[in-house]
Amino acid sequence: MSKQELPVIASTTGCCATTVTSALEPEAAAALAATFKALGDPVRLRLLSLIAAAGGEEVCVCELTPAFDLSQPTISHHLKVLREAGLLTSERRGTWVYYRVVPEALQRLSDVLTPTGLTAAATA
Amino acid sequence: MSKQELPVIASTTGCCATTVTSALEPEAAAALAATFKALGDPVRLRLLSLIAAAGGEEVCVCELTPAFDLSQPTISHHLKVLREAGLLTSERRGTWVYYRVVPEALQRLSDVLTPTGLTAAATA
Repeated sequence: MSKQELPVIASTTGCCATTVTSALEPEAAAALAATFKALGDPVRLRLLSLIAAAGGEEVCVCELTPAFDLSQPTISHHLKVLREAGLLTSERRGTWVYYRVVPEALQRLSDVLTPTGLTAAATA
Repeated sequence: MSKQELPVIASTTGCCATTVTSALEPEAAAALAATFKALGDPVRLRLLSLIAAAGGEEVCVCELTPAFDLSQPTISHHLKVLREAGLLTSERRGTWVYYRVVPEALQRLSDVLTPTGLTAAATA
């Protein structure tokens, strides 16, 4: 069993009062990190907020592009990253692609980011 | 006023039923993106979960290092990124540095990541 797989970590140095009891598993951490990485860009966060502001309705890429000083291919690339992270769904109809947020995906991330959520993720 | 600053976006193409009404401001988006970028790494997420699992208590870097197949300078670098993102506080005492989560920072991020949170952030 490698160190990376150890679910329980006890201090062996005797330097501290606290004992760290658990860690997020590497596989879960990798998946979560990929999603947070998708959010780690201001343009993608603004795109997500624009689509979320539609209150569950879909939003055409043609409505998003005018908000940015960026080309439509660049916007489409950022939307693809968000879609691949599971934060958006998309549907092409005719010329345009329409995007919708995945509320459950946002909620899952939101839940993880509470101190209890992180602990639960660590011990799940 | 540049396109980047436009708080209200109305479709001018007539292609869609939805009207996108607001976007996260570029400055707020940049700050949030920097924090999410700090979370976009599996080692940093695991470190944060380990420290969060201490239930508000501080955790010595010497307790964190044994959980990873990484050198202490590498672990310290990741902890520094989390600290600079405002997610951890640290205190050096003697040989060791002790870390503690900032629950309010996690809670803020958690709040933003709900569909209503994103909308509120967009219209704040």
